[in-house]
Amino acid sequence: MSESIQDTRSTQALSGDISTYLAKPNYAEAIAALKAKFPNQLSVNLTVREQHGHTMTWLTNQPPDAVLTARDKQDVAAAVAICNQFSMPVIAFGIGSSLEGQLNAPFGGLCIDMHAMDTILEVHREDLTVTVEPGVTREQLNHYLRDTGLFFPIDPGANASIGGMVATRASGTNAVRYGTMKDVVLALEVVTASGEIIRTGTRAKKSSAGYDLTRLMIGSEGTLGIVTEITLKLFGISECIGSGLCHFPTVEAACEATMLTIQMCLPIARIELLDALQVKACNQYANLTLKETPTLFVEFHGSEASVHEQAHTFADIIAEFGGSDFVWDTDVAERKRLWQARHNAYHASAALRPTAKPLSTDACVPISRLAECVSETAKDIEDSGMIGPIVGHVGDGNFHVLLLVDTTDAQEIEAAEAIIGRLAQRAIDMGGTCTGEHGIGQGKQKYMPYEHGNAIGLMQAIKTALDPNNILNPGKIWPGSAAL
Amino acid sequence: MSESIQDTRSTQALSGDISTYLAKPNYAEAIAALKAKFPNQLSVNLTVREQHGHTMTWLTNQPPDAVLTARDKQDVAAAVAICNQFSMPVIAFGIGSSLEGQLNAPFGGLCIDMHAMDTILEVHREDLTVTVEPGVTREQLNHYLRDTGLFFPIDPGANASIGGMVATRASGTNAVRYGTMKDVVLALEVVTASGEIIRTGTRAKKSSAGYDLTRLMIGSEGTLGIVTEITLKLFGISECIGSGLCHFPTVEAACEATMLTIQMCLPIARIELLDALQVKACNQYANLTLKETPTLFVEFHGSEASVHEQAHTFADIIAEFGGSDFVWDTDVAERKRLWQARHNAYHASAALRPTAKPLSTDACVPISRLAECVSETAKDIEDSGMIGPIVGHVGDGNFHVLLLVDTTDAQEIEAAEAIIGRLAQRAIDMGGTCTGEHGIGQGKQKYMPYEHGNAIGLMQAIKTALDPNNILNPGKIWPGSAAL
Repeated sequence: MSESIQDTRSTQALSGDISTYLAKPNYAEAIAALKAKFPNQLSVNLTVREQHGHTMTWLTNQPPDAVLTARDKQDVAAAVAICNQFSMPVIAFGIGSSLEGQLNAPFGGLCIDMHAMDTILEVHREDLTVTVEPGVTREQLNHYLRDTGLFFPIDPGANASIGGMVATRASGTNAVRYGTMKDVVLALEVVTASGEIIRTGTRAKKSSAGYDLTRLMIGSEGTLGIVTEITLKLFGISECIGSGLCHFPTVEAACEATMLTIQMCLPIARIELLDALQVKACNQYANLTLKETPTLFVEFHGSEASVHEQAHTFADIIAEFGGSDFVWDTDVAERKRLWQARHNAYHASAALRPTAKPLSTDACVPISRLAECVSETAKDIEDSGMIGPIVGHVGDGNFHVLLLVDTTDAQEIEAAEAIIGRLAQRAIDMGGTCTGEHGIGQGKQKYMPYEHGNAIGLMQAIKTALDPNNILNPGKIWPGSAAL
Repeated sequence: MSESIQDTRSTQALSGDISTYLAKPNYAEAIAALKAKFPNQLSVNLTVREQHGHTMTWLTNQPPDAVLTARDKQDVAAAVAICNQFSMPVIAFGIGSSLEGQLNAPFGGLCIDMHAMDTILEVHREDLTVTVEPGVTREQLNHYLRDTGLFFPIDPGANASIGGMVATRASGTNAVRYGTMKDVVLALEVVTASGEIIRTGTRAKKSSAGYDLTRLMIGSEGTLGIVTEITLKLFGISECIGSGLCHFPTVEAACEATMLTIQMCLPIARIELLDALQVKACNQYANLTLKETPTLFVEFHGSEASVHEQAHTFADIIAEFGGSDFVWDTDVAERKRLWQARHNAYHASAALRPTAKPLSTDACVPISRLAECVSETAKDIEDSGMIGPIVGHVGDGNFHVLLLVDTTDAQEIEAAEAIIGRLAQRAIDMGGTCTGEHGIGQGKQKYMPYEHGNAIGLMQAIKTALDPNNILNPGKIWPGSAAL
C-alpha cells in the first residue's frame, strides 16, 4: 500500500496542480483499524467529511476519508500511530477558519477534529501563563480569564482554536504590541509522526537548552506534528484603554503616519488601516457616517496618564501627515462604537457584492515600503476591474485584500489569483513575505521558491526527517511534500 | 577517512566523557586543500589554535587543527564545502566569550574565525532594522548607531559578537523588556553543512511562509549551519531613562517584589538581583558603602512622565515587601554611579578569592518559583562550603551563580559540578530550564535528557538531516552528536 501512495503523490506533485484530486489508495485497512480502536468517535459520513475538508477560498473541497473526534492526547497519539502504520495522511482540524486550504485532504486520509479537546488545563496567574488543549478557542480562553485581570492578546479576527493558531503562526490586530504566536507560545506538547508524545519548551520565559522545537512547530501547518497542549504567555489587562480613529487624505499619508508612530517607539496596541473603499463599505453596512477616506483605527494600552500621553503624541504625529478628525475615548461603550466599523470590515466588504465571496489574502513588508505596497496593490485591483477593499495591521507592515470574487466564474478566479500573485511578488521584492499571518497551505505554494530560494531544501529535509512516511498533512506548504 | 571519523565519534559517544580527547583522524588532506585555497588566511600555529579552543570553564582546552580567518561569506562557504568533502569538523568562532565549551574542538577540525567579518552592511532607520556580518560585536554596533537615536538592546555582559549571540540564543539584562536573540533576529544568511548559502526570513516583521528556520538556527550553537549575515530589529532610545536600586531584607522579598512588578506588567527595562554576598563583594572591590543585603538594580525607559510613573509604581511595590532605601535618577552620571556595583559584579566576585576563577552558570525558572530556586541554590552553595555569589536577570526568572573555583583542584571542580547539577535539576523540576542564556555546549549536555526527554530524538533527527556528515561543531549539545 505504501508504494501506491507514493505513486499517487508523485503524480500529484508532477502535475503541479494542487486542486487535482487523483484516485486515492484504498485506506480501508487503516480505517478498519481506527474504527476498531475508536468505535464511537469515527465518522465516514460524507457531509461530516466535507465539513472537515472545507476551505475559505475557491480551492476545491477535498474531504478526508474519515473524521475522528479526539478526546485527549492519547487518542491523537494512537490515531497517528495507526495512520503511520498504514502510511495514511492525517490532518488536525481546529475550527476550520484557516484561509489557504490548510485543512483540505488532497490525498485523503484521516482528519482529527480537536474541538472536544477544549480544556483549559492550568492557569498560573503569578507567572502569566496558561496551558490549554488545542481545541480551546481564543474567545473561550479570554472569557475564562475574565476575572483574573489577564488576557490572551492574539486576535486573528476569527474565533480560531489555539491549536490552529499555533499551526498557522497566527497574529492579528494586537501583534504590533504583543507579538504573534511565535512570541507568546512558551511550550508545546506534540504528537510526532510516529505517534510519540513529546514536549518542547518549559514554562520558563527563556531557555538556551537545545534546538527551538517550539518555534519550529509553530507555523508548520500540521506537517511536522500535531499539537496536543499549548502553554501560552498571558498579559495584564491595562488599567486604561483608549481607542480612536482618524482620517487621512491618502493611503500613503496614513501609512507614513503609521511608520512614524512605530519609529518613535510609541507602544501602540493596535493600529489598523481601512482604505476608502472599506470605509465606504462599513458606512453602507451599518449606516455609519464616517468620512470615506483612508482611516486609521488605533488603541492605546497603559496607565491613564500613559494612554493620554500616547494619544497626544499620536495626535501630533498624524497632524504632520494631514490626519484629521482624530477622536478617541477611554469609555468602553464609546470605544466600541468608534471601532464598530473595523469590527464589521469583513461582512461590510461582503455586502459590497452580495453574489460574491470575500476572499482574504495577506502580505507583509518592511514598514518603509508599506505605503508603496498598499498603493500599488490598490491600483492593480482597480486596473483589474475587481473589487477589493484593503484592511491592514499596518503597524507590522501587514495588510489584507478582501477580493470579492464570484467563485463560480473561472475567469474571475484567474484574475483574483493573478492579483494575489502580483501582490506576493511585490511584497517579496520589497523585502517582505507572501503571507504575514495566513500561511501557505495549498493556496500560496507557488510563491515559496521565490521567497525562500534554496532554503526550501532545508525545510524539506526537516520534513522528511520528522515525517519519513509523509503522513502529516501532505500536500501543504509544497505540492507533493518533502517525502517524494 | 570518513569511516575512521565515525569510529572515533562512536567511541567518544559511548565513553560519555566529553573531555576525553581521543586520537583524531588525520585531516592532512583537508588542511592541504584549505591551505591551497586560503594560503594567507590559514594558521596551524599551536598558540593560535589553543586561543580558538579556549573555554571559560574548567573544561580542557581542545584546540582545532587549523584556524581560518574568513573575510566574507564566500570564504565560509568554500571552507565548509572542503570540510564536508573530507568529513572534517568545522567550528565558527566569534570573540570566544561563550561559557559552556561551545568553541572547543573535541574531534579537531577547522575553526573559522569570523572577527574580520565585522561590517555593518545596512541600517534601515525607517524600519528599525540593521544587517550585520557575524563578527560585529554588540558594542561596535551600538557605537555605530550612536547618532541614529536607535540601539540594539541585547546585552549578555561580554562584548560578544552578534554571530556568537545568535549561536547561543543570548539575552541578558534588557531581555525582560526587549526579549532575547530569538525575538530580535528577523533574518539570517547561513552556510549549510554542504557549503550552500541560504537565507532565512525577510525584513518584514512577521511571516507565516513555511518553517521558521531563523529560530531553528538561533541557539543551535553552530551545529546546523554557520551564520554569515544577521538582520536585527533595533529600538528607539527612550527619551528618558531612570536607573535606581533598593535593598531587601531577604532574597525571597526581592524576588517577590520582582514577581509583582512583572505581574503588574510594569514595562521595566532592567531588574537585576545581587545577593548579599555579591553586594559585599562589590563594596570591597570598589570601596562602595551599599547595604549588604539582597539588592535590586532597576532601569525604566520611556517618556519622562512614564519613567516617573514607573518609578513611583515600583516604589509602591517594593514597600509591600520590605524594600528600602530606593534611590533612582535620570541623570546620566548619577545613573552610572548607581549601577556601578552591578557592572562590576563579575570582577568583584573574582576578587573575593583571587586564586580562584569565577565560573558563571545559569538557570531559568517560572518567576513564581524564583525565590525558592534562588534560596535553595544559595543554601546548597553554603552547605557545600563554596563561595558563589548570585546575580540574576530576575524579571525573566533567570539567574547566575558565580562559583569561585580553584580549577587546579579536582575535588573543588567536582563540588562545583555537583552544585551546577543540582541547580539544573532544581530548575527543571520547577518547570524551568538548565540554562536560560548560556547554552549547552559541552558543559550541560548531561542535563539535556532530563529537560527534554524524548524530544531530543527530534533534535537529533534534524541535526542528521541538515548535517549528514556531522561536521558542524560535533560533540556539542549532545556528546557524540546526532550523526552516529
